[in-house]
Amino acid sequence: MSLPAPLTGVVPPLCTPFTPTGEVDTRSLAALAERLIDAGVSALFALGSSGEAAYLGDGGRRTALEAVIEAADGRVPVLAGAIDMTTARVLDHARTAAELGADAVVATAPFYTRTHPVEIADHFRRLRHGVDLPLFAYDIPVSVHSKLTPSILLPLAADATLAGVKDSSGDDGALRRLLVEVRRRGLIDSFTVLTGSELSVDGALLAGAHGVVPGLANVDPAGFVRLYEHARAGRWERAAAEQDRLAALFAITAAGDPALMGGSSSGLGGFKAALRLLGVIDCPDTAAPQVPLGEAAVKTVRQLLEEGGLLP
Amino acid sequence: MSLPAPLTGVVPPLCTPFTPTGEVDTRSLAALAERLIDAGVSALFALGSSGEAAYLGDGGRRTALEAVIEAADGRVPVLAGAIDMTTARVLDHARTAAELGADAVVATAPFYTRTHPVEIADHFRRLRHGVDLPLFAYDIPVSVHSKLTPSILLPLAADATLAGVKDSSGDDGALRRLLVEVRRRGLIDSFTVLTGSELSVDGALLAGAHGVVPGLANVDPAGFVRLYEHARAGRWERAAAEQDRLAALFAITAAGDPALMGGSSSGLGGFKAALRLLGVIDCPDTAAPQVPLGEAAVKTVRQLLEEGGLLP
Amino acid sequence: MSLPAPLTGVVPPLCTPFTPTGEVDTRSLAALAERLIDAGVSALFALGSSGEAAYLGDGGRRTALEAVIEAADGRVPVLAGAIDMTTARVLDHARTAAELGADAVVATAPFYTRTHPVEIADHFRRLRHGVDLPLFAYDIPVSVHSKLTPSILLPLAADATLAGVKDSSGDDGALRRLLVEVRRRGLIDSFTVLTGSELSVDGALLAGAHGVVPGLANVDPAGFVRLYEHARAGRWERAAAEQDRLAALFAITAAGDPALMGGSSSGLGGFKAALRLLGVIDCPDTAAPQVPLGEAAVKTVRQLLEEGGLLP
Amino acid sequence: MSLPAPLTGVVPPLCTPFTPTGEVDTRSLAALAERLIDAGVSALFALGSSGEAAYLGDGGRRTALEAVIEAADGRVPVLAGAIDMTTARVLDHARTAAELGADAVVATAPFYTRTHPVEIADHFRRLRHGVDLPLFAYDIPVSVHSKLTPSILLPLAADATLAGVKDSSGDDGALRRLLVEVRRRGLIDSFTVLTGSELSVDGALLAGAHGVVPGLANVDPAGFVRLYEHARAGRWERAAAEQDRLAALFAITAAGDPALMGGSSSGLGGFKAALRLLGVIDCPDTAAPQVPLGEAAVKTVRQLLEEGGLLP
Repeated sequence: MSLPAPLTGVVPPLCTPFTPTGEVDTRSLAALAERLIDAGVSALFALGSSGEAAYLGDGGRRTALEAVIEAADGRVPVLAGAIDMTTARVLDHARTAAELGADAVVATAPFYTRTHPVEIADHFRRLRHGVDLPLFAYDIPVSVHSKLTPSILLPLAADATLAGVKDSSGDDGALRRLLVEVRRRGLIDSFTVLTGSELSVDGALLAGAHGVVPGLANVDPAGFVRLYEHARAGRWERAAAEQDRLAALFAITAAGDPALMGGSSSGLGGFKAALRLLGVIDCPDTAAPQVPLGEAAVKTVRQLLEEGGLLP
Repeated sequence: MSLPAPLTGVVPPLCTPFTPTGEVDTRSLAALAERLIDAGVSALFALGSSGEAAYLGDGGRRTALEAVIEAADGRVPVLAGAIDMTTARVLDHARTAAELGADAVVATAPFYTRTHPVEIADHFRRLRHGVDLPLFAYDIPVSVHSKLTPSILLPLAADATLAGVKDSSGDDGALRRLLVEVRRRGLIDSFTVLTGSELSVDGALLAGAHGVVPGLANVDPAGFVRLYEHARAGRWERAAAEQDRLAALFAITAAGDPALMGGSSSGLGGFKAALRLLGVIDCPDTAAPQVPLGEAAVKTVRQLLEEGGLLP
Repeated sequence: MSLPAPLTGVVPPLCTPFTPTGEVDTRSLAALAERLIDAGVSALFALGSSGEAAYLGDGGRRTALEAVIEAADGRVPVLAGAIDMTTARVLDHARTAAELGADAVVATAPFYTRTHPVEIADHFRRLRHGVDLPLFAYDIPVSVHSKLTPSILLPLAADATLAGVKDSSGDDGALRRLLVEVRRRGLIDSFTVLTGSELSVDGALLAGAHGVVPGLANVDPAGFVRLYEHARAGRWERAAAEQDRLAALFAITAAGDPALMGGSSSGLGGFKAALRLLGVIDCPDTAAPQVPLGEAAVKTVRQLLEEGGLLP
Repeated sequence: MSLPAPLTGVVPPLCTPFTPTGEVDTRSLAALAERLIDAGVSALFALGSSGEAAYLGDGGRRTALEAVIEAADGRVPVLAGAIDMTTARVLDHARTAAELGADAVVATAPFYTRTHPVEIADHFRRLRHGVDLPLFAYDIPVSVHSKLTPSILLPLAADATLAGVKDSSGDDGALRRLLVEVRRRGLIDSFTVLTGSELSVDGALLAGAHGVVPGLANVDPAGFVRLYEHARAGRWERAAAEQDRLAALFAITAAGDPALMGGSSSGLGGFKAALRLLGVIDCPDTAAPQVPLGEAAVKTVRQLLEEGGLLP
């Protein structure tokens, strides 16, 4: 299907459930996709950071993307992450995504290598020319250690290299400067700006962002859809109240003990434990070498789901 | 005067104008303070980062603080920055502030040294016991290279070590989590949460922050007061529009060429160039070893003031 | 061939030459390998950072590794980089390396994701169990943003998970602490410690390192072999003099203008420009999106080769 | 007394002992200075990071510097740290040092503020013009978050702004590049290069550094003097063996539990616990808000002193 421009609403970055033997669990993944579509999301984002793309081999990535596209069944567009170090490698993933029927590709700045704004811009231009799909820039400095500043993004928006940006930088000041400039240059109806924040979505929408890509929407898609609709209708205090509830729920990502595991183990483990407790997926395992959540952490997750009104 | 709890509204961190020979220009500083009070700010913050506290000797700090307190003349409270590396040094500044009649003290986590959350908490407790003034924590990781997380701040809020926090971290996600917890623990009427952002104030207020400490309010205090009042009255789209205008104006901080100067030279130089162009201060110099803005940068500042409606 | 334990001497991380159309130039790569073996290196390291592994698709990686193994022809062992984000992906590369006949695999800590020492250790254990080749840890914080500390490495050395480490951290203090502990635990004859530094090889050998993996050895392999042999023979001042000459030559990596390109473009571009000027490879191109060196930079490289005695 | 140019040998950065009530313990400080001079050090460095300068108020700094100068009694030169955020504040400390009779001043790049190489150079030039004492640059990125690169230092060496540099960056590659250039420009007999490393002193001396400023020399000055003399006499393997012993002893800085305290608490606490166990100082306290070492850590320190041959 074709991708709306701009893309608005809630675009969850899907978790990738595994079987106990570590295979992609396509049944659970389809169930997750179904639940998200039922809740009213606008699109699905497969193979993002929440989807453990960094942990999946090429085979696993392919399986997961196929499953999401099949589950979406043309009802909502599917964006596919093409997460890799530099241009040639990203292009390989992007071409696979195109071949499998994805509606757009999402790529970060180069990483592992020491890069430069000129190289980052050239990277996106080469990606855009190399694959015939709308291209979203994924701004995630915590992973790639460079920031997609407005001065990098605006020329790429102006010449239609980029269809949009997913801003997971947490830098809401830079997001605002970007939005102000996007509007000033008359690009607001063609260049999509999505926040990747889970915690300041109301503010980002008030600032003019088109939508949101929240990992937490795996767990509470209906909450994010309500938040988005309150905002679109100008019910800002209700949007903020919904955001507050979701911010409290977000503590499921910090249930793991930081002395025992990394942030990915705790965050993705929290999402998957919740999805298991909600009966959406069969097995809460995250990919190796992430550390599984302990019993106490899972209990915390359950309690937060109860407090958040998602479990009785 | 006594400090309201919580402290709300716009609390500008005053620039410190200099004479051409590098002395604190108390006349210009008084004029700046007067202009801010006229615009309806709630309090004045002297000796913050925007006040070039890092560049002032103890004598200059004392002169600047005295001038601000005198200019405020009891009409609004004066918060005094006590910016130094660790406890003993901060306490010396805090005692001077108390002696000069400041209404509150603002201090960062220890810096220069490699610190730890336990030490940061102990630092604030010792400061609070060592000087009889309300104490605000100043969260500014870009300067001190550690972050005041909710888990550090909440116990210090609960036991009244801290009267509040000025969050200049730019991490609006953490700000949201802090606000949600402050409310949940019933501390929202006693513990003040101020955002130091210039660019996402509408979102921070929507999230429940009590007020804002924007460096840009040196230049456009009335704009921030309007933004604050729109927010308080629930006119969120108007607040956002005002924020958009201010975000465009904020480009004055990026007028300097980053190849030629540091971020402080460009940012503080932009504020001071604007204040000079507006006729508020006599001399736009920043303290050594900052690099002065060149002519082209000053022209950019003038143009932005015109576009922002501050110059005809 | 089987890998000596410990592995000693000079182990160059081979550049990967390209044709003007961006294919791996296997003829030039073979010529480079031949020149290195002639100079007396102990082993070849293919697909490291100097080999632009981050820029090569899987096909290019395979072609480059095959070419190096074929060129080595059993005369020296070939170590193969398996650079990827996390365990499953690294394992795919490691298995390919095994299949192609590499003598050892070199892998970093997980990157892109937020990891933890426990996860890093598990990562290496899983790699070791998943492929039947000696495994070297590649400590390169500038790329992966975590450091392989002695406390991570020592248990992995003790239980023979790791055959050795390539330390490209530049942290010679940590290298010393590692070496002291490796000796104290009686592991010095089984666990190989290689420095990845180009600039403090004499000191690292004096501290007891077994060998060196210098990118600059692409350009001046004989110099590094001499440096190594002086050190082994206890001629430390002569080793230092050779190191000084090589340190001056290393300026070829800084010939590119940092305002115009990233560190990778400048460093790898400098190596390749030198190899072209020396007549070893046909085309100095680096992989996209790296920025090519300009004429002035190439002239600087030529001059440094002349000053270093490599060009008349 | 006048400072030799270049300054060579071992220049310990003295710890600052405290009384149980937190005052500078001048008796213990004098005893420490005496022990260091007896061991054959070339100069004393007061008010460095090891001297807890960041934790001392101006009064404490003055007391400590006076005590060291008095104890040195003209037998060895005394270098005085002037650690503060920017030029004006550093100058105040530098003038006090001159007034008290220090033989040289040691200052870092600006910190807290966002700075730039041009500003750093101007900072040192203003310091040099503002106080009539030889000026050493203190390169300590872990504290000030910028690096004094060769391209910053070399012009300041060439025009005699700087008498030398204390390199505590741990970046031995940059140290080598600096030394190579200092020699090439004929500055090696006028510009002093001291390494601040405790762990790669043999390598730094082999590379041509003039001397060393090791915090660990508070505890084992004789060891560092032996190391230095072996190196000067070309007995490199004996220098390395001494360095190995000292590297093992350096573990006293890691006796504290990193989950409970910061690096400063553990490192300086280790030095002071050792000095107390050796009977040099009366009280092992570090300044607030550092966390004291627990009993287990002190036991570890004792054991390491025994293993290092410093305690029976």
